[in-house]
Amino acid sequence: MGQDTISAKPHEALAFLLRDEMARVDALIRARMASKNAPRIPEVTAHLVEAGGKRLRPLLTLASARLCGYEGPYHVHLAATVEFIHTATLLHDDVVDESLQRRGRPTANLMWDNKSSVLVGDYLFSRSFQLMVETGSLRVLDILANASATIAEGEVLQLTAAQDLRTDEATYLKVIRGKTAALFAAATEVGAVIAGADEGTISALNSYGDALGISFQIVDDLLDYGGSSSQLGKNTGDDFRERKLTLPVIKAVGRASADERAFWTRVIEKGEQQDGDLATAMQILARHDSLQETRTEAIAWADKAKRALRALPDNDLRRLLGDLADYVVARLN
Amino acid sequence: MGQDTISAKPHEALAFLLRDEMARVDALIRARMASKNAPRIPEVTAHLVEAGGKRLRPLLTLASARLCGYEGPYHVHLAATVEFIHTATLLHDDVVDESLQRRGRPTANLMWDNKSSVLVGDYLFSRSFQLMVETGSLRVLDILANASATIAEGEVLQLTAAQDLRTDEATYLKVIRGKTAALFAAATEVGAVIAGADEGTISALNSYGDALGISFQIVDDLLDYGGSSSQLGKNTGDDFRERKLTLPVIKAVGRASADERAFWTRVIEKGEQQDGDLATAMQILARHDSLQETRTEAIAWADKAKRALRALPDNDLRRLLGDLADYVVARLN
Repeated sequence: MGQDTISAKPHEALAFLLRDEMARVDALIRARMASKNAPRIPEVTAHLVEAGGKRLRPLLTLASARLCGYEGPYHVHLAATVEFIHTATLLHDDVVDESLQRRGRPTANLMWDNKSSVLVGDYLFSRSFQLMVETGSLRVLDILANASATIAEGEVLQLTAAQDLRTDEATYLKVIRGKTAALFAAATEVGAVIAGADEGTISALNSYGDALGISFQIVDDLLDYGGSSSQLGKNTGDDFRERKLTLPVIKAVGRASADERAFWTRVIEKGEQQDGDLATAMQILARHDSLQETRTEAIAWADKAKRALRALPDNDLRRLLGDLADYVVARLN
Repeated sequence: MGQDTISAKPHEALAFLLRDEMARVDALIRARMASKNAPRIPEVTAHLVEAGGKRLRPLLTLASARLCGYEGPYHVHLAATVEFIHTATLLHDDVVDESLQRRGRPTANLMWDNKSSVLVGDYLFSRSFQLMVETGSLRVLDILANASATIAEGEVLQLTAAQDLRTDEATYLKVIRGKTAALFAAATEVGAVIAGADEGTISALNSYGDALGISFQIVDDLLDYGGSSSQLGKNTGDDFRERKLTLPVIKAVGRASADERAFWTRVIEKGEQQDGDLATAMQILARHDSLQETRTEAIAWADKAKRALRALPDNDLRRLLGDLADYVVARLN
């Protein structure tokens, strides 16, 4: 790895290091998102796939397989698989959240309709399933089937838990394991499995993906309240407006005075929001140190991710995966 | 098989003959539709699963496996798998069609919301995927992955084709292969595969399921115009009101006069429907013999299904599968 990549963000350095394989992943994604029978399918998928995104999950699979010394072709299939699963869940999430923007573009449900988003999501999920069958590994299929069930379960749990003030940190953890960490963990684990790594290595890479995903989602939820600075910037307050209970608020609800509890009940459970409510919420979060404590948890999960890597051979890829865990929480600064 | 089952409808006779295995399928469905993490899931699935339905697809899998002499346990998993896939597609279809009733009950999207239907559908699809992985058969996984992709593709194709008067019979066939026949064909094929049947038998049972499914869907579409009698009863005209182009109308459009073409353009493509339009549509269908010709096609597909069975050993199960093909079109009388 040359000096010119050292200063890059770790996912960019990973993308550079794995650029040949990522090109094969991209080619496979393009080939498999097509449908000669239903032209609506490539329209919708191209809209989303070509908008880019960081391709973090396929990078994790490629890095994991290469870290375990894999020389075969199937990590490319698995990297495309996890990106298809991710894209399918984005399409369905946008219907569920009635979102208007994704990756800086109008969402597919807005460009076409909810029907297209639901059914093209189903199509991509089926295509991911075909790709993993091609690897011929029942263990990989088992991991991805379980991850898929955990993802859907987490999403359904979020439906009922997100606006319920009784939701505690354990439930929040289940939700974000489902919506984010399950696919991160599967992405790294299948890379190790397809490489025929030993059980310790497979388990370490699963733990890394799980902890990285949890840290990633906590940071996302924290950034929605402006990070740990108590300063609101652009693109903040969405979760508040959508009445989505996330870790900072859960922490504050746990310590709420009677007045504060009445406030959270009104704005989150009843959804009766007025001008100035977000500022009030920020004051309450600051009063209880909720943002700082949430940040501490995100860092603890990133540290857990890095510790999991200790079981692996020390090389460029391992260092970049460690840097990635640091980078996830560095987004807060 | 006793005399008392001879007079029953063939799917009821199949259910009676396979009652012990169907009880195991039902128990497995109940066990796997649960979720300890997200209570919304069993609520939604119980609403749909307990409403019953004919359980036609799991019966086909069980019958196919038993017909091929299978003695193992995994046909039960596969029967539950196909029912889960079917239930998942129903949940998503109801969102797409904005349906109000399913199996005589309000739809899940009405009882809960579209979000729950989308995400619980995803959950059931993932659970089906776990069940099939448990069989340990990569060939079964391949068949079901391909069927899932064909289903989703057919549903997306229907979105664009259903209100487009240029849709021809070949496109209609692709749509109904997707929405119905692909899962019928997979249901019978995986029964044969798990039983270790020879290639001729596997191919015959795939052809049977495919032709049965096509016949079944053509009949459904015909019944929506009152069957071949040109008499409208209750529950007819839904496809017309939803501007869904099906075989009877496609046939009539192919022979339309200029006036008739203007009529179809107005009511289907533009969706500008008035009182009396359905009666006019029925007159046009009668004028071109479209219902009779559609009926002839349904019968031809049922005959194709029966012919496919000739490759199989002659026993009670084979006779009931043949009777089932006759029964599908007998619904028209």
